[in-house]
Amino acid sequence: MSRAARANYREDVAGRANVEDTPELLAYYDELENLQTGALWTVANKIEPWQPQSSSVPVLWRYQDLRAHVLRSADLVSPEKAGRRVIYLNNPGRKDVAAAVGWLYSGLQTMRPGELASAHAHSASALRFIMEGQGAYTIVDGHKMTLGANDFVLTPNGTWHEHGVSAEGTPCIWQDGLDIPLMNALEANFYVVHPDLQQAVTHPVDDSPAAWGATALHPVGHKWDKGYSPLLKYQWEPTYEALSRYARVTDGSPYDGVIMDYVNPLTGGPVMQTIGASMQMLRPGEHTKAHRHTGSYIYQVAKGRGWSVINGQRFDWRERDIFCVPSWMFHEHANASAGEDACLFCFNDLPVMKALGLYREQALAENGGHQAA
Amino acid sequence: MSRAARANYREDVAGRANVEDTPELLAYYDELENLQTGALWTVANKIEPWQPQSSSVPVLWRYQDLRAHVLRSADLVSPEKAGRRVIYLNNPGRKDVAAAVGWLYSGLQTMRPGELASAHAHSASALRFIMEGQGAYTIVDGHKMTLGANDFVLTPNGTWHEHGVSAEGTPCIWQDGLDIPLMNALEANFYVVHPDLQQAVTHPVDDSPAAWGATALHPVGHKWDKGYSPLLKYQWEPTYEALSRYARVTDGSPYDGVIMDYVNPLTGGPVMQTIGASMQMLRPGEHTKAHRHTGSYIYQVAKGRGWSVINGQRFDWRERDIFCVPSWMFHEHANASAGEDACLFCFNDLPVMKALGLYREQALAENGGHQAA
Amino acid sequence: MSRAARANYREDVAGRANVEDTPELLAYYDELENLQTGALWTVANKIEPWQPQSSSVPVLWRYQDLRAHVLRSADLVSPEKAGRRVIYLNNPGRKDVAAAVGWLYSGLQTMRPGELASAHAHSASALRFIMEGQGAYTIVDGHKMTLGANDFVLTPNGTWHEHGVSAEGTPCIWQDGLDIPLMNALEANFYVVHPDLQQAVTHPVDDSPAAWGATALHPVGHKWDKGYSPLLKYQWEPTYEALSRYARVTDGSPYDGVIMDYVNPLTGGPVMQTIGASMQMLRPGEHTKAHRHTGSYIYQVAKGRGWSVINGQRFDWRERDIFCVPSWMFHEHANASAGEDACLFCFNDLPVMKALGLYREQALAENGGHQAA
Amino acid sequence: MSRAARANYREDVAGRANVEDTPELLAYYDELENLQTGALWTVANKIEPWQPQSSSVPVLWRYQDLRAHVLRSADLVSPEKAGRRVIYLNNPGRKDVAAAVGWLYSGLQTMRPGELASAHAHSASALRFIMEGQGAYTIVDGHKMTLGANDFVLTPNGTWHEHGVSAEGTPCIWQDGLDIPLMNALEANFYVVHPDLQQAVTHPVDDSPAAWGATALHPVGHKWDKGYSPLLKYQWEPTYEALSRYARVTDGSPYDGVIMDYVNPLTGGPVMQTIGASMQMLRPGEHTKAHRHTGSYIYQVAKGRGWSVINGQRFDWRERDIFCVPSWMFHEHANASAGEDACLFCFNDLPVMKALGLYREQALAENGGHQAA
Repeated sequence: MSRAARANYREDVAGRANVEDTPELLAYYDELENLQTGALWTVANKIEPWQPQSSSVPVLWRYQDLRAHVLRSADLVSPEKAGRRVIYLNNPGRKDVAAAVGWLYSGLQTMRPGELASAHAHSASALRFIMEGQGAYTIVDGHKMTLGANDFVLTPNGTWHEHGVSAEGTPCIWQDGLDIPLMNALEANFYVVHPDLQQAVTHPVDDSPAAWGATALHPVGHKWDKGYSPLLKYQWEPTYEALSRYARVTDGSPYDGVIMDYVNPLTGGPVMQTIGASMQMLRPGEHTKAHRHTGSYIYQVAKGRGWSVINGQRFDWRERDIFCVPSWMFHEHANASAGEDACLFCFNDLPVMKALGLYREQALAENGGHQAA
Repeated sequence: MSRAARANYREDVAGRANVEDTPELLAYYDELENLQTGALWTVANKIEPWQPQSSSVPVLWRYQDLRAHVLRSADLVSPEKAGRRVIYLNNPGRKDVAAAVGWLYSGLQTMRPGELASAHAHSASALRFIMEGQGAYTIVDGHKMTLGANDFVLTPNGTWHEHGVSAEGTPCIWQDGLDIPLMNALEANFYVVHPDLQQAVTHPVDDSPAAWGATALHPVGHKWDKGYSPLLKYQWEPTYEALSRYARVTDGSPYDGVIMDYVNPLTGGPVMQTIGASMQMLRPGEHTKAHRHTGSYIYQVAKGRGWSVINGQRFDWRERDIFCVPSWMFHEHANASAGEDACLFCFNDLPVMKALGLYREQALAENGGHQAA
Repeated sequence: MSRAARANYREDVAGRANVEDTPELLAYYDELENLQTGALWTVANKIEPWQPQSSSVPVLWRYQDLRAHVLRSADLVSPEKAGRRVIYLNNPGRKDVAAAVGWLYSGLQTMRPGELASAHAHSASALRFIMEGQGAYTIVDGHKMTLGANDFVLTPNGTWHEHGVSAEGTPCIWQDGLDIPLMNALEANFYVVHPDLQQAVTHPVDDSPAAWGATALHPVGHKWDKGYSPLLKYQWEPTYEALSRYARVTDGSPYDGVIMDYVNPLTGGPVMQTIGASMQMLRPGEHTKAHRHTGSYIYQVAKGRGWSVINGQRFDWRERDIFCVPSWMFHEHANASAGEDACLFCFNDLPVMKALGLYREQALAENGGHQAA
Repeated sequence: MSRAARANYREDVAGRANVEDTPELLAYYDELENLQTGALWTVANKIEPWQPQSSSVPVLWRYQDLRAHVLRSADLVSPEKAGRRVIYLNNPGRKDVAAAVGWLYSGLQTMRPGELASAHAHSASALRFIMEGQGAYTIVDGHKMTLGANDFVLTPNGTWHEHGVSAEGTPCIWQDGLDIPLMNALEANFYVVHPDLQQAVTHPVDDSPAAWGATALHPVGHKWDKGYSPLLKYQWEPTYEALSRYARVTDGSPYDGVIMDYVNPLTGGPVMQTIGASMQMLRPGEHTKAHRHTGSYIYQVAKGRGWSVINGQRFDWRERDIFCVPSWMFHEHANASAGEDACLFCFNDLPVMKALGLYREQALAENGGHQAA
């Protein structure tokens, strides 16, 4: 690096680095560089910001804009050639890692009746949230699950998994969510294609929700030592019913309305070790207060219409739209309907924040808790 | 103690105590006794048996025998005078501690419309299983729960709780299950009467199942640091539905048919720290194999008719009958109907066995796994 | 039971049972008894006391009284015939279960040089605390540990274990502590004699403290899934040194002086699932305040002299004396020396209390926290 | 992006993306890009590699090269101006994030007698490993610890901490280790300067090791709900003694010799939630086999001399040298002395790998387990 270009991040604050460049120091910096070292005080203020500065920006992806392009992908490439025929969401601040926000990847995938993708396994944890169509299914380690709109299915870290649509179905579209970028960043990503390209279904169809989808009842004598939930499919109807029932007895969160986490029934913890998920209901006319927290969030509108204000910017959404909230940006949500509730599905890296002791949260103090947008 | 009466438990087995009494030893034993000591070898074989010898015996309590007596108690004593108007099950081997089996207490309680019992709290963990009638309710720490037949409700260790039947209801009967004898044995039993004799209902009715009774969905931001489940009521309909659904994808347990544990949804563990509970379904014509395990079990027939063989003795049961299985006794169950399933509710001290590292289980090896009865 | 003798525990307190006997009721009670049932209100006040009433009494066993008797046992019986040649401590209130206090057993065992006991395993958890002599050793699942005065060794639930004194040693005496009575009460006690009567030493001598006895350092890649500590021997010298070091930076507990728990280094929890242990130092002249708690405690004086006041009764002790504190009895301790510290070893059933959610503690409020004795 | 430059990562393997560019597809890609989306199949093979490809390279930093530069920093800048006067280790592959390897930062810091740095707190977890000098100390949340060569001290996530050298001491040098880059990557980094620039010492000096540094003994009644160890200082002498003792009873690891993890004594887990540490001893002449695993490692030679082969490259090291092993690179270690042991201190992000379910390990199968170097 030429001396002219050498960076020096100074701040005139007690306790922060504030060393003026001198010819002697610049020469010293050159010597350090030759030893694969550097002077901390030239970069300390850069690498230790006062608070997180996300490199992601808030984005709303409108389904009406994306849907035709997603369907068209089926005309343009085959699942065999594409591996997975997915249009991924590419945050302008995260193009280098193909992330939708933070270290989370997301994409929209379509399949036609009778199509199926090849089976594989990877270190990334993955989920699908069904957007439209009939006959979709997912197979995870021999467990086949049938899927309908707003159903949510896990294909966790290390499992063999594949997706398809039955021949009797209709074209399907779903949202994929994975932490591929995080796995790469952590240099822990492994990928394997199934030796037979497809796996056998070795259990009764939908056995996972039949065994683990009951209210606070567990099969006796089960064996489960995985880091993810044995319940792999979370269906929309009981989820919506649960939110409706809960809404009758709670004031809800000031920031999120009536909100419930999808959990691993064996532990009460998150569904997978690196990705959490929730569904929240904004009651008719509800407009929540703003807060911010560490962690990156991707929302899909499961029901209704409304808007969110993220980092001071308003995003109007309707059913099937997708938007993201980067780490430590204020956000608040509003239901635009006075008569119908609105529901937001969300997945996030909250389990990472919590497992590493990094979760932090702050309410907006000013302006009655609302951002000017 | 006179020398003649001094006990000496000898066994002629290598590694076991086998010391003949001599005048010198007997004199020595007297000296030891004066020092509040004894010679271990005189009692070692008694206090260290080769395997558990339960002091309880298997008992079946027929509801047709008990029902009239239970109802009559309402004519004979008032709830105010009785404290709790309960007919308790008294195992012939455990009369000294008023236990139904092992260290578990159980009784049948009746209440008429408009009656309610006074509120109290105790160290014993408690549950109720509703047998008949309409309008029963339980209040736990301000949470009121309405109850119907085969519903199961917790009144855990340390909570204020009280029971009643609404004025619009009918006479109700339910089974109580507690570990009062264990709390006494462990010298840890505290009892408090509520200062106002009744407690206020401080939450919406049935808020506990509305918040915690959903399938693998938890309220976000809850606070709960108790040793027992935040879900206090487990209803019959979803339980039966869960068993039916699970039955379609499992072979079941060879010893118990299709069996599920009621769990604390926050931990996947037992509903309370000292009492566990399960519901099991015996499919039409199913006859399970025999096994035995540590821990004491009390069953109530929630549905159907059949029989169990316990320690070689056959007990025929029908709906609402109650029976017990003492620790380490072989037991097997049979559904007497070829067309209908049968369901057994069970509560037990399995969480104690597991928390203390004492659970042990053994299948009957002989005779194809069936006892001669 | 004759009607005359039928018990009826009445209390004239709102919320407690207070039903007068009438001829009609007495006849009813007889009918209930025939059905192996009873009326709860006749026994409720008995089985639900306001607070724990221990059946144990405080006892001090003076070593000067016991020592000669213990040594004499070696003249009177052989280890082969006795199984274990132990003089056990027999609380006057617990003679039926051969307990020293509550559900804890304790005894003094002696062995001569060259003697060894046969190997066995049992459900009871056990420990030894060495009182005098040289050359004692214990073998646990093939791990041999050499032992000196005030060393503390575990022989946990389910392990093969045996004790001996090397031929080069001197006569040894130690205290045994076990929860045999609890295992019997819980009907979970199994006993096995080793098929070869002795077990092989399969690891380097004292490998357990070499691997697990370091300060906050663990062997990498260990496998351990037991409920008890992999560290089986806790030596006196580092224990005394740790207390001395800790004493310099702490005010200590108002009730116990400078007190530390022996822990399972893998979990920070108790050394075994059902028995905990601690060592405490009373500084010169220290006299602690009184408190009481659930759980039964057995103390041995490891160093010094002083007294304890237990349930209002004063017990003066000196090195090697043993005393017990029953559940929920107030107790306080005093060091009689103005110049030397005093140390008390203690084992207890605190892990049971805590695992089952039953631990409760109360300071004495009156009289500056001191009992009149 | 121009069409010419558009990347397309193709692989001719079943199950992988292999779509040829066509004018139609390139036009489609442009449309997608305008919607902040992309076609997964153009990048899938890039973002889902078959196995981790670390962007770090193995580096050895020789102390003899660095020492003079580190000492010179004290002539060039004051602690006040520098904030922290540190020469950081800058991996050629990680210059953008100022990391020594992966997401770990490390640097060498010097202080002269009487100097002290300002107190601050940050989300990054930090540690120091003392290299030379007398009189160094660290204060963490009011706990002051005195430090000598090869001592290891924690300044965990969120704690107020500061470093200094007493006026009676000598110039000191130590290694800092932090996960600043990870905290930035996870967008969870907060930084605060202490309002008074210095904090008060509110506990007796070295109270943390006095309370928590004992062998499997814990203060009774402590309160600790942090995610990191209450033991903040790990001293060299007992660590070396522990390794020496353990070496006498173990064969050691084939890959690491006699290796022990520094642990949180309350949990048996890592010292902090995001950084683990270990000390290992290579016995005289020992040459370990190669393995690789996920996670990034930084070593300092605490004692002796030898070499390591990392990813096929040999690095010869002596006392105080520092080297790194990037994720999933094979590595093996050798002690160059036939008479003396060698010891390697290591810190790493293993707790992150394990908390997120990402730890994976593989032995080198070929060539007797040794890399050609």
